Amino acid sequence: MTTNAYAAQNATTPLAPFNLQRREVGPKDVQIEILYCGVCHSDLHTVRSEWQGTTYPCVPGHEIIGRVVAVGADVKKFKAGDPAGVGCMVDSCRTCVNCEADLEQFCNDTTFTYNSADKKSGGITYGGYADSIVVDEAFVLKIPPNLDLAATAPLLCAGITTYSPMHHHNVSKGQKVGIVGLGGLGHMGVKLAKALGAHVVVFTTSANKVEDALRLGADEVVNSKNADEMNKHLNSFHFILDTVSAQHDITAYLLLLGRDGNLTQVGVPPEPLSLNVGSLVFGRRSLSGSLIGGIKETQEMLDFCGEHNITADIELIPIQNINEAYDRLVKSDVKYRFVIDMASLKPAS
Amino acid sequence: MTTNAYAAQNATTPLAPFNLQRREVGPKDVQIEILYCGVCHSDLHTVRSEWQGTTYPCVPGHEIIGRVVAVGADVKKFKAGDPAGVGCMVDSCRTCVNCEADLEQFCNDTTFTYNSADKKSGGITYGGYADSIVVDEAFVLKIPPNLDLAATAPLLCAGITTYSPMHHHNVSKGQKVGIVGLGGLGHMGVKLAKALGAHVVVFTTSANKVEDALRLGADEVVNSKNADEMNKHLNSFHFILDTVSAQHDITAYLLLLGRDGNLTQVGVPPEPLSLNVGSLVFGRRSLSGSLIGGIKETQEMLDFCGEHNITADIELIPIQNINEAYDRLVKSDVKYRFVIDMASLKPAS
Repeated sequence: MTTNAYAAQNATTPLAPFNLQRREVGPKDVQIEILYCGVCHSDLHTVRSEWQGTTYPCVPGHEIIGRVVAVGADVKKFKAGDPAGVGCMVDSCRTCVNCEADLEQFCNDTTFTYNSADKKSGGITYGGYADSIVVDEAFVLKIPPNLDLAATAPLLCAGITTYSPMHHHNVSKGQKVGIVGLGGLGHMGVKLAKALGAHVVVFTTSANKVEDALRLGADEVVNSKNADEMNKHLNSFHFILDTVSAQHDITAYLLLLGRDGNLTQVGVPPEPLSLNVGSLVFGRRSLSGSLIGGIKETQEMLDFCGEHNITADIELIPIQNINEAYDRLVKSDVKYRFVIDMASLKPAS
Repeated sequence: MTTNAYAAQNATTPLAPFNLQRREVGPKDVQIEILYCGVCHSDLHTVRSEWQGTTYPCVPGHEIIGRVVAVGADVKKFKAGDPAGVGCMVDSCRTCVNCEADLEQFCNDTTFTYNSADKKSGGITYGGYADSIVVDEAFVLKIPPNLDLAATAPLLCAGITTYSPMHHHNVSKGQKVGIVGLGGLGHMGVKLAKALGAHVVVFTTSANKVEDALRLGADEVVNSKNADEMNKHLNSFHFILDTVSAQHDITAYLLLLGRDGNLTQVGVPPEPLSLNVGSLVFGRRSLSGSLIGGIKETQEMLDFCGEHNITADIELIPIQNINEAYDRLVKSDVKYRFVIDMASLKPAS
């Protein structure tokens, strides 16, 4: 099944049109016509081989929204015409303790949506910068009918990445929740924390993001470079979601947690952070990490977003602009997620 | 009430005999003849003003075991002749959220056993290197009758410091638990983890501690400098108790935790540690701190030790040897806790 796509042929040349083969639809498979695909920073890291281990050609994209065009004989959850989503994973071993716990993201044999060994076809997986994809229904998400499809695409990665730790740490009504960094992840964190009933405080170093943070739902905005502002919040947070993937002073945020408070990192700075252990000992605070979320929890997140009418703030682009979008992404010049309109992907000549 | 004690007059001279006044026994007070007092590294840090804020003369000691000699009219838990213990705290505000939660160690107004503003007498608190102490019964612990009194003293700080995080993180039968560092804290950690039913792995860099670790109850001993030995334990621990208060590679231990595993620091290295955030994100691991424990939990720990016949391994010393003991403590030359035999404390001339 020939599929039109955009691929990187190596780490340094621009993404360009590419044809790939999807497998035939098996008994449990869902074939999806891709309508929209969000642009995640991981796409850029992989395409440019900044994380090692990229196999070329590389077709990125794991915030996929489309419409079902065909289903296998054993498929129960979907029928042709349904909206459908695919996130960061398309398969896993299904039998390990992590898969049994609905935490497929921690399976040792997860098949990621792109640049991952594809046990079904024998090659490498190709992602959502394409006009179709074939995925086992166990890894296909249902999309609430009230949500705008383009703006829903980023929920599949940015949404679940920020929802999962808040859900895991029981963020709930009346709690004080901090969001560090207001980018693709952070802006989703604000919306989700607010919908969960929290008092939301955004930490940013950009004065020009204050208004936006408030518009997105923040109750307060703190300039994290201002020690006086920071000191007002000492020992007061139940939970802080840290989305910053660059070097930063994590101890300053840990000190803002109340007793038994937790700070979860979803960004992964390339260099180690400096940690003052006293900030954990006094107040029995904890520091955790979190990685996307399992399929079951991703569906819960989507349903929650449906109930609360939550989608991402996006800038819709034609796929021909993807290389320019990457350059802007490096400069954090996007509010707050690029989404590719796959209608722009005409058959490669 | 004149009390014989040993005090430091400043940060550099040896501890020497000193007389101090204890308050009269109030309605809720318990007067205790001190029989034994453990020697904690905190004593040394405070005496030598290594943590700032030491008020001289300073009488340290917060691992106190003695016998009740008098009780106030309203005292219900104790009568003359009972064995009794006093740990790191002698009072708190009793009304804040932390006190209400039986976590007096996190109260903003805790009165610590020594070198702390004494709201009752107006001066500074004097600790257990003395022949008597007067403490509100709410902060006095009952001692199980089967335990050796001298060897029980270290439970009041080293015991609760290691028990509390294991209790908080639900260490239980069949779990794999690591203990990093085999000193005063670590050796208690091994005994307590074993009694909780865990499979206990001790990490040490000292080849000469292997035999001791096994004798104390460890199921395995790992040389943390040996990468091959460490790699065998990747992704496998439920809980790791890190007692090291010097610079060390915490990321190497985080990588040994299984999914959702927790590493708790009870040592506080003076310099920040280097933390690789990826070690938390992959596996949703967490890193916490813990500080002694509340009074209720300290009593639970003592009762648990009574049931399981757990005390510290100690070296009993006369108080006249305290300065030599401090010098040996700096070199970690003690297996595993010095305890002062207060019978050696004759009235100062």
